[in-house]
Amino acid sequence: MNDRALRHVVVGLGDGNGPAREDAFDITAASEVMAVLCLARDRADLKQRLGRLLVGFDVDDRPVFARDLGAVRPMAVLLRDALMPNLVQTIEGGPALVHGGPFANIAHGASSLVATRLGLAQADVVVTEAGFGSDLGAEKFFDIVCRTGEVWPRAAVLVATCRALKWHGGASAEALALPDVAALRRGLSNLAAHVDNLRAFGFDPVVAVNQFATDSEDELSVVESFCRDRGLACARADAFGGGGAGCEALGRAVIRAVESGPTVPRFLYPLEDTPTQKIAAIGRRLYGAADVAFVGSTSQDLQLIHRLELERLPVCIAKTQASLSDDPSRRGRPQGFTLSIREIRPAIGAGFLIAYAGPVTTMPGLPREPAALGLDIDDGGVVHGLY
Amino acid sequence: MNDRALRHVVVGLGDGNGPAREDAFDITAASEVMAVLCLARDRADLKQRLGRLLVGFDVDDRPVFARDLGAVRPMAVLLRDALMPNLVQTIEGGPALVHGGPFANIAHGASSLVATRLGLAQADVVVTEAGFGSDLGAEKFFDIVCRTGEVWPRAAVLVATCRALKWHGGASAEALALPDVAALRRGLSNLAAHVDNLRAFGFDPVVAVNQFATDSEDELSVVESFCRDRGLACARADAFGGGGAGCEALGRAVIRAVESGPTVPRFLYPLEDTPTQKIAAIGRRLYGAADVAFVGSTSQDLQLIHRLELERLPVCIAKTQASLSDDPSRRGRPQGFTLSIREIRPAIGAGFLIAYAGPVTTMPGLPREPAALGLDIDDGGVVHGLY
Amino acid sequence: MNDRALRHVVVGLGDGNGPAREDAFDITAASEVMAVLCLARDRADLKQRLGRLLVGFDVDDRPVFARDLGAVRPMAVLLRDALMPNLVQTIEGGPALVHGGPFANIAHGASSLVATRLGLAQADVVVTEAGFGSDLGAEKFFDIVCRTGEVWPRAAVLVATCRALKWHGGASAEALALPDVAALRRGLSNLAAHVDNLRAFGFDPVVAVNQFATDSEDELSVVESFCRDRGLACARADAFGGGGAGCEALGRAVIRAVESGPTVPRFLYPLEDTPTQKIAAIGRRLYGAADVAFVGSTSQDLQLIHRLELERLPVCIAKTQASLSDDPSRRGRPQGFTLSIREIRPAIGAGFLIAYAGPVTTMPGLPREPAALGLDIDDGGVVHGLY
Amino acid sequence: MNDRALRHVVVGLGDGNGPAREDAFDITAASEVMAVLCLARDRADLKQRLGRLLVGFDVDDRPVFARDLGAVRPMAVLLRDALMPNLVQTIEGGPALVHGGPFANIAHGASSLVATRLGLAQADVVVTEAGFGSDLGAEKFFDIVCRTGEVWPRAAVLVATCRALKWHGGASAEALALPDVAALRRGLSNLAAHVDNLRAFGFDPVVAVNQFATDSEDELSVVESFCRDRGLACARADAFGGGGAGCEALGRAVIRAVESGPTVPRFLYPLEDTPTQKIAAIGRRLYGAADVAFVGSTSQDLQLIHRLELERLPVCIAKTQASLSDDPSRRGRPQGFTLSIREIRPAIGAGFLIAYAGPVTTMPGLPREPAALGLDIDDGGVVHGLY
Repeated sequence: MNDRALRHVVVGLGDGNGPAREDAFDITAASEVMAVLCLARDRADLKQRLGRLLVGFDVDDRPVFARDLGAVRPMAVLLRDALMPNLVQTIEGGPALVHGGPFANIAHGASSLVATRLGLAQADVVVTEAGFGSDLGAEKFFDIVCRTGEVWPRAAVLVATCRALKWHGGASAEALALPDVAALRRGLSNLAAHVDNLRAFGFDPVVAVNQFATDSEDELSVVESFCRDRGLACARADAFGGGGAGCEALGRAVIRAVESGPTVPRFLYPLEDTPTQKIAAIGRRLYGAADVAFVGSTSQDLQLIHRLELERLPVCIAKTQASLSDDPSRRGRPQGFTLSIREIRPAIGAGFLIAYAGPVTTMPGLPREPAALGLDIDDGGVVHGLY
Repeated sequence: MNDRALRHVVVGLGDGNGPAREDAFDITAASEVMAVLCLARDRADLKQRLGRLLVGFDVDDRPVFARDLGAVRPMAVLLRDALMPNLVQTIEGGPALVHGGPFANIAHGASSLVATRLGLAQADVVVTEAGFGSDLGAEKFFDIVCRTGEVWPRAAVLVATCRALKWHGGASAEALALPDVAALRRGLSNLAAHVDNLRAFGFDPVVAVNQFATDSEDELSVVESFCRDRGLACARADAFGGGGAGCEALGRAVIRAVESGPTVPRFLYPLEDTPTQKIAAIGRRLYGAADVAFVGSTSQDLQLIHRLELERLPVCIAKTQASLSDDPSRRGRPQGFTLSIREIRPAIGAGFLIAYAGPVTTMPGLPREPAALGLDIDDGGVVHGLY
Repeated sequence: MNDRALRHVVVGLGDGNGPAREDAFDITAASEVMAVLCLARDRADLKQRLGRLLVGFDVDDRPVFARDLGAVRPMAVLLRDALMPNLVQTIEGGPALVHGGPFANIAHGASSLVATRLGLAQADVVVTEAGFGSDLGAEKFFDIVCRTGEVWPRAAVLVATCRALKWHGGASAEALALPDVAALRRGLSNLAAHVDNLRAFGFDPVVAVNQFATDSEDELSVVESFCRDRGLACARADAFGGGGAGCEALGRAVIRAVESGPTVPRFLYPLEDTPTQKIAAIGRRLYGAADVAFVGSTSQDLQLIHRLELERLPVCIAKTQASLSDDPSRRGRPQGFTLSIREIRPAIGAGFLIAYAGPVTTMPGLPREPAALGLDIDDGGVVHGLY
Repeated sequence: MNDRALRHVVVGLGDGNGPAREDAFDITAASEVMAVLCLARDRADLKQRLGRLLVGFDVDDRPVFARDLGAVRPMAVLLRDALMPNLVQTIEGGPALVHGGPFANIAHGASSLVATRLGLAQADVVVTEAGFGSDLGAEKFFDIVCRTGEVWPRAAVLVATCRALKWHGGASAEALALPDVAALRRGLSNLAAHVDNLRAFGFDPVVAVNQFATDSEDELSVVESFCRDRGLACARADAFGGGGAGCEALGRAVIRAVESGPTVPRFLYPLEDTPTQKIAAIGRRLYGAADVAFVGSTSQDLQLIHRLELERLPVCIAKTQASLSDDPSRRGRPQGFTLSIREIRPAIGAGFLIAYAGPVTTMPGLPREPAALGLDIDDGGVVHGLY
């Protein structure tokens, strides 16, 4: 469970319990084990990846891996059921696989490869989510997940909302429910950036406008005409209000995109590039950075990566989702900024290098009024207050 | 999971994560929440008990309970499924309810009351286990569980082994598989003490001799004749080697005991006694102590118990299971010793006072060669090395 | 400075500052270095003793001494001036050497040997103090300091007060200023024990009655007649009220004792005795214990002492000064009690084994209203509030 | 004493010793108390400053000062002797006052005001040192010490070495003893910056060339001609090799400067400027920064400074002494860089705001081979190995 008191601890105190050492707890989603689980092809691959988890360094500064501690097989036993995808259904009875939850900030943020492959083996079309925008979710899905799993999509959907576009156009959070075509027009620079980002991977995305009751017809039309001008398919999606029927237009648009012909994998960088080249490629081409600064411990980190021969791994950038840049206050399509990387840490089991472009919390704290206070269970065992 | 490094920790370090404080992790079985779960009658009672969990004291030294923190309802939600008994089956298909595991050292060590009541509602005869001998498991089962749950058994079974009797007669651990009638005879003083203890609660126990392949016929006969001399039913039990058939004689003996007529609850002490009187009753009558010494923090502890008006609670003694006394090296039927109580801590949610008659570890450590190292899972998902 | 927060700490946290470890601060007087300084004969002996300070154990469980760390010579440099005795003078101009302050609870509690030897080289008569009664100060002075320093006194002075005798006779702390001859008579059992203790070392002590304004003539006479009956010299001492003149009678009595002839060293135990024999000798003969119990870690401690070949060292018992026994609530001359030793720790530099007969704080805490709050310094640099 | 294990600790562990809290030890020279002592005018001012030491914040986020804890007067008592300047003498018998040692990195780095004033009252000419170059020592001396103490020098001496100038001209550390006129000429840009900096305070400095045996005549001449071209007095100083006689020329040059007429205080910024303006003034005019970036916690820090009404305090910048910039690798006269301030902490007792332009250690660690290992004291009490 979340508890900010577990973020930084000293353990092993007391006679016979030591040695004392500083440590930290991560929540499950932030553990490298979660990323490992979601990128493993099967049990054999899972064990390989668990074995590569870097535990620390011995007195001679040689790396110690989980496999050196005999921890691989028992960990695989503990993950026995976890590796199985969960099949659930929507309110209307549609099947959905919900499996794995690697944090998008320190990991790749996508559903498990095992679930994706299971879906592909059973269905005509499999839709998966790559959260947090084209700069984070899509980039990591293409460059890490697809490259690792040897899969590649037939189409890409870019989800937009009038609210978010007004925000990127400068509207305040309180005013997002009010019609403001001028702000929305200004915010289209952000949508344009995401379109360009997906085109960098070879896709003309289908733009799905996720409708809210407060969207005005004028606003919706502006988005649609923006797409028309760029030759992009666009469909309003009202899954929240209208269920499956509310998404029918989107579904048809996606089917058309899927049937429009085969696609070929196109990555943003080759694995042969150096880690700094890879980071620069993402920062400049997808984020719009003018420059990338390597500060903090990065020079020592790169030496370690070189020593451990990990330079061929793809990079997974930890960055705010509130901006295309690494500064959450910069909206729209920021230009001319310097992307700052302060640390590069190898996640060898997951199979990528994590480049930190901002602070990352791997143990969230509870808010002042935790949701738990609103929960209850009645005498019949029915839980109340979950939503 | 067990980790001795978690026995004594400092948490809440770092900016915004504090205040720093010393703390300790307990494993689930040693948590008062486990005892609460196992003694709760239903969801409503569970909430009452969770609400009485003592969290600490405020700046004015007034007790702070879980209910003061709004923690009761979310805890009850988390325990939603845990409160449901688990129905499993034996290899031969017999039904068994496996539910709850309060540590016998700091709690009462019996299966859940909910499971017991479920069994009683569905079956002619329900057998439950009260682990760690008549001094620990049986005493706590009668004085705490039966009193709390308003149930009372119709018969009592006392399990003995030739091996344990030889141990109590002075044989070394290495020699327990060798025939040694003399040692076994000496060890019968221990069996006699357990018989006397069960008679204190009103039962002539059925003695079940849990057979081992190394038991000699001479040894088994000595135990049987010991029982015959005392007018006790005795049956060999070979569940391990012979399954259900191996226990048929025992089963018949138990049925006869159950059908021999009704029993009435008989407790070792009334709840009106003071905590020290209750502890003395157990120590003198069941353990055979000549005297009870209250040392350590007990005088302050008793003041707190008085201030919180908890003197009517039954007591749950934390003591070694290796001896009837509090000294694990004293075998057989120790006499003339002083039982030392060093601390008395209220477990208000569970509904008893824990009197510590020895050191108690609530977070076991792993052995030098943890069992985990022998575990594995194959590509088909089958786990190996569990047994 | 005193700070209870420094009694138990974790140090070495943070990158590059570790390894983290549990530690504790002692005040100077409680450090073994203080005992070393006070028992050293000269700089060469100081270095020898510093070199024997036990720092810990290496990974093969071999002892690590200060000399193994190259710490001896720099420590001796730091103690350069500390080894020099301080010559001060009384209000009347008499010379006094004030040098060293080893805590009487975990060390020997006497002034430095260097100062004693300096005094003996310069004066006809040197008076030194052995604090905390014949059971603590005198025993340690004779068995440790005199044996180590190869000195032996010519006379012994036993200081008594009517107040303390009334206390040992059962009077309350509030009533000590009131005349109570009955209580004082009862309390003489305590004085008798101290006389017997000093006779065990070969001395008929001069009894100095340290006068208070509230002492009644009746009370003083009772003490004097007690001494007369035992053939002991007795003198009233009024140094506080009358300065040097107030002690003239005592001075003359002491001179007479000194001139009465030579004395020969007589120790309570030979160094060849085992540590437990030595402790038993002190406990039975000086404290009046009926028995000595070795509990806690003493059996492991004695193994270590054997392994390090330290069995010939004298013992220094850590015990309350409020009673001849180890229970501060027992006044007068306790009989029939069991002395409990819970730990025996080697102080190899000091040259003795510390046997703990009770809790010892080596870092005192400040009271609720620290004396510091009453201190001040004026603009001219004069300090106020020190006394 | 230095011990890196004391840089980050948890104290107050154990029953009755708490509350537990994170803390850190500073060495004396890094304590704000040292800065307070060195800037105090007299005992009354010392108490005022001690009273303003910021200890923390109460539960309502109001500042808690040392005066709120009754700590001022006892601290002043402890500093009784420390406030007195120490009069020592040079090898040739010249008097010198050595008093106070505030770290130049987190404090102002100059000798005590009390000593300066004592010198001024007794001597015709008082020379004091302001360490670490015109950017650190001189700036702090003028803007903080002189402004606080209401003193102002009559002349300024700028110390240069051929070695340092070659370093700033690009020579390697190993090559500094070899003649290299070209490197020295390039390094003169650094000397020029320091001259400009001192002129900003109104002084044409006397340049003292601190001679080394390895300086070549050519190199010395280049420095002298650099000074001549700028109209500056220049003198070779050979105090190390020639004692007082070796500095006679420098002494005469300084006397001429002192006698050349009165000077008037000229500060780099008025106290009315905001803290950011003050920092910018120093960064741009003295360090040569193109810009100043306020990062890290500075925005919250400035809010606190505003809330506590501390904006009129002068600023004391913590910066590397290895470069005029905040990057120790930039030699010569760096241009166009951005000075990064990551934290601004009030030192209210000292009377300035500390702006951190880089990492600062307030508890130095020992080197791999501590100097202590080379120390010894002989039997006669003479210490060896100090130098």
